[in-house]
Amino acid sequence: MAEPTKFLLSEDQIPTEWINLMADLPGPPLPPLSPATMQPAGPEDLAAIFPMSLIEQEVSAEPEIAIPDEVREAYRLWRPTPMFRARRLERELDTPARIYYKYEGVSPAGSHKPNTAVPQAWANKQAGITRLSTETGAGQWGSSLAFACALFGLECEVFMVGSSYDQKPYRRSMIQTWGATVHRSPSDRTEAGRSQASHPTGSLGIAISEAVEIAAQREDTNYSLGSVLNHVLLHQTVIGVESIAQMELAGDEPDVVIACVGGGSNFGGIAIPFLRRVLRGEAKTLFIAAEPAACPTLTRGAYRYDFGDTVGLTPLMPMYTLGHDFVPPPVHAGGLRYHGDSPLVSALVKEGLVEARAYRQNTCFAAALQFARTEGIIAAPESSHAIRAAIDEAEAAREAGEARVILFNLSGHGDFDMAAYDAYLAGNLEDPEFSEADMEAALARLPQTPAIA
Amino acid sequence: MAEPTKFLLSEDQIPTEWINLMADLPGPPLPPLSPATMQPAGPEDLAAIFPMSLIEQEVSAEPEIAIPDEVREAYRLWRPTPMFRARRLERELDTPARIYYKYEGVSPAGSHKPNTAVPQAWANKQAGITRLSTETGAGQWGSSLAFACALFGLECEVFMVGSSYDQKPYRRSMIQTWGATVHRSPSDRTEAGRSQASHPTGSLGIAISEAVEIAAQREDTNYSLGSVLNHVLLHQTVIGVESIAQMELAGDEPDVVIACVGGGSNFGGIAIPFLRRVLRGEAKTLFIAAEPAACPTLTRGAYRYDFGDTVGLTPLMPMYTLGHDFVPPPVHAGGLRYHGDSPLVSALVKEGLVEARAYRQNTCFAAALQFARTEGIIAAPESSHAIRAAIDEAEAAREAGEARVILFNLSGHGDFDMAAYDAYLAGNLEDPEFSEADMEAALARLPQTPAIA
Repeated sequence: MAEPTKFLLSEDQIPTEWINLMADLPGPPLPPLSPATMQPAGPEDLAAIFPMSLIEQEVSAEPEIAIPDEVREAYRLWRPTPMFRARRLERELDTPARIYYKYEGVSPAGSHKPNTAVPQAWANKQAGITRLSTETGAGQWGSSLAFACALFGLECEVFMVGSSYDQKPYRRSMIQTWGATVHRSPSDRTEAGRSQASHPTGSLGIAISEAVEIAAQREDTNYSLGSVLNHVLLHQTVIGVESIAQMELAGDEPDVVIACVGGGSNFGGIAIPFLRRVLRGEAKTLFIAAEPAACPTLTRGAYRYDFGDTVGLTPLMPMYTLGHDFVPPPVHAGGLRYHGDSPLVSALVKEGLVEARAYRQNTCFAAALQFARTEGIIAAPESSHAIRAAIDEAEAAREAGEARVILFNLSGHGDFDMAAYDAYLAGNLEDPEFSEADMEAALARLPQTPAIA
Repeated sequence: MAEPTKFLLSEDQIPTEWINLMADLPGPPLPPLSPATMQPAGPEDLAAIFPMSLIEQEVSAEPEIAIPDEVREAYRLWRPTPMFRARRLERELDTPARIYYKYEGVSPAGSHKPNTAVPQAWANKQAGITRLSTETGAGQWGSSLAFACALFGLECEVFMVGSSYDQKPYRRSMIQTWGATVHRSPSDRTEAGRSQASHPTGSLGIAISEAVEIAAQREDTNYSLGSVLNHVLLHQTVIGVESIAQMELAGDEPDVVIACVGGGSNFGGIAIPFLRRVLRGEAKTLFIAAEPAACPTLTRGAYRYDFGDTVGLTPLMPMYTLGHDFVPPPVHAGGLRYHGDSPLVSALVKEGLVEARAYRQNTCFAAALQFARTEGIIAAPESSHAIRAAIDEAEAAREAGEARVILFNLSGHGDFDMAAYDAYLAGNLEDPEFSEADMEAALARLPQTPAIA
């Protein structure tokens, strides 16, 4: 048989530790600010909705954090995930580059999201919590948390953005199949929901408010977030830790590591373990954060303190932002339509350790089609941004005559996104850019907070 | 870490040979009959629509057939598939049984179908064919053949049953994403289609007729079938060959091997390599073929010569049948709604080597829900029949206090079947049985053919 294509680890090789980059960064991270006082928020500000063990992870300076046995046990249902060498794509591109992809779509929910849903559910169960609440847009995160709660016998309540609830029933069905309850948001179950009854299609901001309200009110209930926060990125580092072992199996070392970025968790997940090696002077690697041109947070946003949600209830975080009430055009990569970005990823971009690039929707679908017809897998629209960036790098390597080694994270499959492929194939896919005027206006409405150096 | 859950093979362990059970069966198989003459059909009767290498496989008496290197190379995109020990399900059932499942849903198309689509596409390419035609119902087979044709640069033309084309657009989108053309059947591209314009919702029988007509007329085009025939089951034996290696890794030996049955290919795929060991006196194994009570071909049908299609254009095959124009009620396991069954599987049931059991739709969804909430994977409705049978066996083992070892084939995921889960969760899932009167009438219309001893 020809040279290897597939790099597999045994279940004994599921990582035993998550990687926390804080210890290797120069100086302490900027703190979040309380929305009430604009002063640094402490652990106690979060204790109403998160268990203390996750808050400790959020602010930890330890370089590694042990993964609980029960979490590793549950990870075995789909981890370690495979890494592939994209030999068919390489031949199609006629490139000297060697292209590898880590495939997170093999999880039951079909993306990387269960990597953090499982430890979050476990941490809450350990803290005596019996119910988790969360929001979901198209349903990737809600279905992942429902799956994790089913494993540990927790109740799960998901507030789903009204327009998605109506138009995308199948992720909702997944959530229910795993035993969770789904509410169309805005709902009449919360003050926040009732106050927004005049916006019947809902928004992620409203859904977050509803989920947080339920968690803050009820002793037995906590809230769970699927991206942005440090502990979420921490949990996702299993992707990168496995990838390092798999690149060793392949006998190769990546020159470039690529992932798409919405809130930053799948990017952080694959990049952080490789970034630590760069920070320690052990490797030189280019990191590319691929975002949609319709929501170009890292490439066009301001580096400022801003709210995590639209309504302005969450702590303010230091990050690249387009303004918390900026509404991106409706591209199909719903998971990348976020006005802000993980503070950690933002800081890495600011420091020049990570390069952000923005891609138009149609060029991403073109890349996804080329990938599907060579490597087989039909990717999620979010992941198609990483494919686009990887193909561009491979083509640049061909032009330069360089045997560049490219690793990208294929964060999920597109089984629930076929309507988007349909539109692309029919030539009907819109290709929106964001409105500069809308962004300027949203940035002008940013809260008055200390400037970031 | 606890005891192993996941049994993986490396890509070097992709099987090198398919297993042909013909050599181990007592006496030659009954031949198919030509529809025109009712006399045994020879290879020349099939040469207009199949390449000679597949016809040779269809009638071969060799015990093993080498898998071409190019096919093994393509298999590496998803094979070897994983085998899991269902420890969470075992705990939930509180059974002493050890339950293993082989998971074929990791293929790009999400089921076992690419195992035969790839070698069929390759064999046709080798024969100088540039286009394949086929039919598809809900789209599992059409998408798998489209994927295989994309890998080898063949054109692919799929006739999709009209009602599915209208109601289930997402498998159609997959087919197009892999570059194939989809026609709503009945179409105006064929004589057969035009003659059936008065049946605008179409049927699998009509779609087969259209695909065969195109293949018979055009020199550059052949026809491809996704189940029933000997060479299709042969290709699927990669499932069972890998499973034997994986059971060895687990240090266990199955007492029971289970799969669902529609045309018989996923059942044959996992069972045949184990069946050969039984025929050679090397093992004692119970084989359970799980079929829907709404279409109980093996449990209630007659063992007779019958047509493979509704219209009566194909050769007559010796098999269990409910009558070629019997229309099963519309259960969601569309892949199991076939009036007949593979002649090979039928003969094994007739000989008592395989036990057929029929299950109602709701009880299968109940089993699939229990499986999703313990093992994570949301199964295809077809595969839920195998889960039901496996859980029943595990519960019987508990009653008997026996540490029975159960292996079942999880043939595909349910990502495109969430509407069925929705209906089940809402308590709206119909639970049809077949009509005895309709079956009797269909059996009375069977063609006049020699009785089978």
